[in-house]
Amino acid sequence: MAVLEPWEAIAARKKQERDSKIPPQWRIPSSLLPSLDVLDVHDFPKTDRELLITESTASTVVSKIASGEWTALEVTEARDGKTIGPLHGLLISLKVRLGSTIGYVSYAEKPATSDSTLVTVLVQAGAILYVKTNVPATLMMGESVNNVFGRTKNPRNRELTSSGSSSGESCLVSFRESFMGIGTDIGGSIRNPSSFTELTAIQPSHSQVSYQNAVNTYLGQEVMRSCAGPMCRSVSDVRLFMSAVASQSPWLLDPQTLPIPWRSDAEKLPEKLCFGFGMGDGTVMPTPPLMRAMEIAKAKLIAAGHSFIDFIPSEHIEAADIISKMWEADSGEEFQRDTDVSVFDTWQNRHKRALLAQRWLEKWQATASETGTGRPIDGLIMPSIPFPAARHDAGYPHHWGALSPLLDLTTGVFPVTQVDLKKDVIPSDWEPISETDGKVWKCYGKPKNHENALVGLTVIGRILEEEKVTAMLDVITKALGIDY
Amino acid sequence: MAVLEPWEAIAARKKQERDSKIPPQWRIPSSLLPSLDVLDVHDFPKTDRELLITESTASTVVSKIASGEWTALEVTEARDGKTIGPLHGLLISLKVRLGSTIGYVSYAEKPATSDSTLVTVLVQAGAILYVKTNVPATLMMGESVNNVFGRTKNPRNRELTSSGSSSGESCLVSFRESFMGIGTDIGGSIRNPSSFTELTAIQPSHSQVSYQNAVNTYLGQEVMRSCAGPMCRSVSDVRLFMSAVASQSPWLLDPQTLPIPWRSDAEKLPEKLCFGFGMGDGTVMPTPPLMRAMEIAKAKLIAAGHSFIDFIPSEHIEAADIISKMWEADSGEEFQRDTDVSVFDTWQNRHKRALLAQRWLEKWQATASETGTGRPIDGLIMPSIPFPAARHDAGYPHHWGALSPLLDLTTGVFPVTQVDLKKDVIPSDWEPISETDGKVWKCYGKPKNHENALVGLTVIGRILEEEKVTAMLDVITKALGIDY
Repeated sequence: MAVLEPWEAIAARKKQERDSKIPPQWRIPSSLLPSLDVLDVHDFPKTDRELLITESTASTVVSKIASGEWTALEVTEARDGKTIGPLHGLLISLKVRLGSTIGYVSYAEKPATSDSTLVTVLVQAGAILYVKTNVPATLMMGESVNNVFGRTKNPRNRELTSSGSSSGESCLVSFRESFMGIGTDIGGSIRNPSSFTELTAIQPSHSQVSYQNAVNTYLGQEVMRSCAGPMCRSVSDVRLFMSAVASQSPWLLDPQTLPIPWRSDAEKLPEKLCFGFGMGDGTVMPTPPLMRAMEIAKAKLIAAGHSFIDFIPSEHIEAADIISKMWEADSGEEFQRDTDVSVFDTWQNRHKRALLAQRWLEKWQATASETGTGRPIDGLIMPSIPFPAARHDAGYPHHWGALSPLLDLTTGVFPVTQVDLKKDVIPSDWEPISETDGKVWKCYGKPKNHENALVGLTVIGRILEEEKVTAMLDVITKALGIDY
Repeated sequence: MAVLEPWEAIAARKKQERDSKIPPQWRIPSSLLPSLDVLDVHDFPKTDRELLITESTASTVVSKIASGEWTALEVTEARDGKTIGPLHGLLISLKVRLGSTIGYVSYAEKPATSDSTLVTVLVQAGAILYVKTNVPATLMMGESVNNVFGRTKNPRNRELTSSGSSSGESCLVSFRESFMGIGTDIGGSIRNPSSFTELTAIQPSHSQVSYQNAVNTYLGQEVMRSCAGPMCRSVSDVRLFMSAVASQSPWLLDPQTLPIPWRSDAEKLPEKLCFGFGMGDGTVMPTPPLMRAMEIAKAKLIAAGHSFIDFIPSEHIEAADIISKMWEADSGEEFQRDTDVSVFDTWQNRHKRALLAQRWLEKWQATASETGTGRPIDGLIMPSIPFPAARHDAGYPHHWGALSPLLDLTTGVFPVTQVDLKKDVIPSDWEPISETDGKVWKCYGKPKNHENALVGLTVIGRILEEEKVTAMLDVITKALGIDY
């Protein structure tokens, strides 16, 4: 029988390997690092001399490189001066699942033997991939912490999480150390970390951005599929990523990516939009900072000439139930769980999902009689999670991340505000609307627990509405006065 | 305990109910029916006085009604004279699965309580649905025979099958008693019956034509999904159906139907096409009439300026294996089978399908170096089944129907020839290339067993290539000199 090496030794070797790959000129001397008692470190990278470039959005970078104004980035010297694609010369970071270990010590020394198709597509479009970022062990937790690389902290308050699982990406991008990050999402993993770090992002329909050959668990599980998407500092960057990826015809490399080009026509919006206003799911209410973010977004969009109708997505409850059955369904062979779920049960569960999707569509279409635009709501604005960033290891008793991936609804993320120590106190006459609601608000506690935490919201569209959702992100961020 | 009624009584009652719904003026007096010893009855309906209209294609009918040249069809009198959609006034038949029983006696008196979404879409487009057609019990056999309505025979030779499961449709359309039939296909059920009755058809990608609320078994099974598609007497009619359905935005009714309009641009083909030539799958060869049909199609297309490269889809073998595991996977709860398949096994099986799809795409793309067009092959021409129509209850030891639905490849069907008693004899020096090949050719036996049987072929494209495949059907049928 083989003698097992202690995991600490493997992890130490992996970290040493990582460190050895970072060029010395990229290292920040420890004497310049902020001291450990400084909790808000988000502005620290601005002390760096590369400020001008790192503050630029990805869209600016590619246009400056393409025009020759910036020759910058020595990596591009290896090329012959021609722009080779829409992402030419752009440094893009990647969540590790798109390239290697997924936070398991046991995977640490089993690097991927082939690129994921998305990597091939990005390189083909001219991008330069230079770093992979941290994730939770198993990928299925709400915070990026694992036994190989440790913990990813929130740059606004190092005592808080930056959520999971794509929070390695969100932190790096918000730090201005990456122009654009690529995350993955099956239950909020792009949306929550982006909301916690002031990013604009999109969780696309799963068949729009290739997921082929990504390191994954649950291979072959298709009730709800993870998708890959961009986490950015501007709406233009979201559009740049999505259109650049589509321009490479990824469907010629990945049969699960649909042959649909970026449809600029679908970006043209009617002048007046009507949004659904999703203040919770009928069972849980957003906690005070999220509730306030909802009211801010509503007021600013109404001031910009748009309108709202209430639209409570109570389907979240059934969605969560379908998903929990799905996670139980592998008879323990993947995570050694003990379950008693038959193949027939899983078919029944998928059929339930189909019926839920049908009811959701009917409910959405039926709003046409209320919106006053002659159309159903153009998008649904709601939080993806009822909390702002929580303290490390706090966990979350509830979230709203399930419905969009389950029904494959294109979902955009935008920043709104940050926790306010005065305004976000729980009112003295507060009463929970359900047992879960009580747990959620108790977990929130008081604004001081979340000091400096940022708050974002999502706008949920239909399946394969990446262009329209991107255009709605433009409308929303302009109305909110977010200036990139 | 309830006393069970004999199935014969239920079936008799169901047939009586059916008969009572046929208006007397639609009945053909039995004295005019061909006598039982006449095997080839396909021309019989031409003795009918409605010949002029029934010989017309669906495309002609809708244009004559739209222009007012034909007011015909009393049903349209109920409308106000305006054309209400692209299928206005067109009589369309439906396979029963899209509306009611599926050949089970136990379902005979449980009519569907709501329309399938496709029915809603067709009615919205102006079609008149007037009849449902026969299927095999369980839908999963190669011949339409069941305990409720009996057997559907081949109009060219009543001793032969017209295949399954959409052969009620194919017979009615080939009889000129329906302008257009709607079948469903998960393993050849549109393709084989169409090939056996001289029809032109398309098995679309499953997300193109709504399948929502169709009567089905295996609900929630999604490894390989059945699709609905048109079975026609002309390529124009295939285009009419596909574009008419897309024009009704079915994705606003069915969340599993993708929001993709009919893309006329994608119908524009390069002048010179290069086809893959799929003479069998490497394990089984087409029997003589099918082999001859392949050579006819090749010669005529080359004469029309196109080219061929060999392309043997050996992936059929693995596809069949994946599919048989899938059918075994319901732990017996749907068909009382005894199996020992875990949920994890089914996930593994789906992952195998994803890998197969990836290899298929790579193989297809790699042909770009051989075609001489700079592109990969435009389509793969091959039979969907190695036989012509067989005698009743003969069964089939092998077919090639699995790959297209498993990988969701758009597949067109076109007529080529018919069994020739002289040319289609097995050569005296014939040797089987495998054990299965031996069984297949033994089952074929001799052309006399299949006298008068028609032979069609398929052209396989990529996922979501309905427009291109329809355009290729135009090119192919013109080259073959098929005159609608």
